[in-house]
Amino acid sequence: MTILVTNDDGIESPGIAALVRAMQQIADVVVVAPDRQQSAVGHALTIASPLRATPYHRNGQIFGWAINGTPADCVKLGVSSLLQSPPDMVVSGINHGSNTSVNAIYSGTVSAATEGTLMGIPSMAVSLDDFSMHADFTLAAQVAAHIAAEMHTYQLPKGTLLNVNVPAIAPSRCKGIRITQQGHSVWQDTYERRIDPHGREYFWLSGQLVPVSPLPDADDLLMAEGYVAITPIHYELTNFAVMEQLRSKVSELPKQEEVPLSDMP
Amino acid sequence: MTILVTNDDGIESPGIAALVRAMQQIADVVVVAPDRQQSAVGHALTIASPLRATPYHRNGQIFGWAINGTPADCVKLGVSSLLQSPPDMVVSGINHGSNTSVNAIYSGTVSAATEGTLMGIPSMAVSLDDFSMHADFTLAAQVAAHIAAEMHTYQLPKGTLLNVNVPAIAPSRCKGIRITQQGHSVWQDTYERRIDPHGREYFWLSGQLVPVSPLPDADDLLMAEGYVAITPIHYELTNFAVMEQLRSKVSELPKQEEVPLSDMP
Repeated sequence: MTILVTNDDGIESPGIAALVRAMQQIADVVVVAPDRQQSAVGHALTIASPLRATPYHRNGQIFGWAINGTPADCVKLGVSSLLQSPPDMVVSGINHGSNTSVNAIYSGTVSAATEGTLMGIPSMAVSLDDFSMHADFTLAAQVAAHIAAEMHTYQLPKGTLLNVNVPAIAPSRCKGIRITQQGHSVWQDTYERRIDPHGREYFWLSGQLVPVSPLPDADDLLMAEGYVAITPIHYELTNFAVMEQLRSKVSELPKQEEVPLSDMP
Repeated sequence: MTILVTNDDGIESPGIAALVRAMQQIADVVVVAPDRQQSAVGHALTIASPLRATPYHRNGQIFGWAINGTPADCVKLGVSSLLQSPPDMVVSGINHGSNTSVNAIYSGTVSAATEGTLMGIPSMAVSLDDFSMHADFTLAAQVAAHIAAEMHTYQLPKGTLLNVNVPAIAPSRCKGIRITQQGHSVWQDTYERRIDPHGREYFWLSGQLVPVSPLPDADDLLMAEGYVAITPIHYELTNFAVMEQLRSKVSELPKQEEVPLSDMP
């Protein structure tokens, strides 16, 4: 089995090193990851400029390919150009910081796994609820290996991936695994208005995640209670329930006069 | 009524100028848009660096705020810091190029409208099926004004926005409006491998959108037939059908020995 490992914190982050060690227990690992921090890039793709793939070394050995692009770029380029044949799995992470609730939309970690799914490869994103560069990845690495090892038994339908969020606790304190839904918490955004050394105004995003309505099965809620939260997500965005309702409400465009070509000015 | 207009092609693009003219027929318009091309940025947010808002002039008049950020940044910053009060609507576009099928995931145009929805504001994304900078926006502008004017009657549920895709034809040739679902076409990606003038290898993304399975209601199909395609989309990513199935398949983590604090090394 070959696993393509990527992330959005960059190839130098401790989280991806922990994930690679965990995946090496069960598979051959190829790392294709951004050459720098790419948090909150969402599903960005690089189309207007070229991509470079540079061998990256760690402890004197080749660790993987560093790409001057986004997490989704890494998966696309890795699968279609760098690997000899498509990998059996794409695993993205371990992210420094959880990707529950609305964060799944902004997350480069989740988008990399989504890209794997779009390419027809079983994929998962693994995130740890700790932003610190000194976070303890023990539990998250254990969880990643556990799920990756039995992933083939889940028979996930085409287009569905796993968004795994791990609480920042010791393995012995973990209450277990829960299958969850994406929570409904949203960011309450504030921009700090500041003045730079040259007297010019700038804005810096800040804010906090606030629960909108408590859902019993929500990923953020169960993670906060000490469970590993696994949410099956897909990229089907249509709100089917609203389609019928809209059909009776959207009015037709006013009829346009057909202008014969010969009458055109 | 106040409408916040943004896009992902940048504040200088012809598409946003056409949209602003259309929206001014029915509302006060405030433009907050990226200062440069931001296609395929997805739902990226700028969190690691400051944002600047610079007045942008067109024909000697202030046209709007140019932001050194992504479409989602523009909506967040506009709503929370630049406008005196939240707008009644967010309209994103008119995009040069359609955002049907999987393109909705990569699209900065759609993400800007999604961000508006996340902030509780009725929102829509409008895209024209023509990449050219000399595209004819007549039909798309007409459609945008038509939908924006009656949007309040649709009573869209919280969290649902409209993804509007317009064929590149004259208004007189348009067959009408259809309520559609997100198509299932995906990109067949290829990276062109090239050598730069200094002998170094680089990769450039190319590819084409191919239909996976034909859906009768698909946005790309109906747009290609000459209809305006309106897809109601939301950011609920959970695949609820898979949740139950996973509960019986994911095995628990092996039990960890509890290590008393006093025994820790």
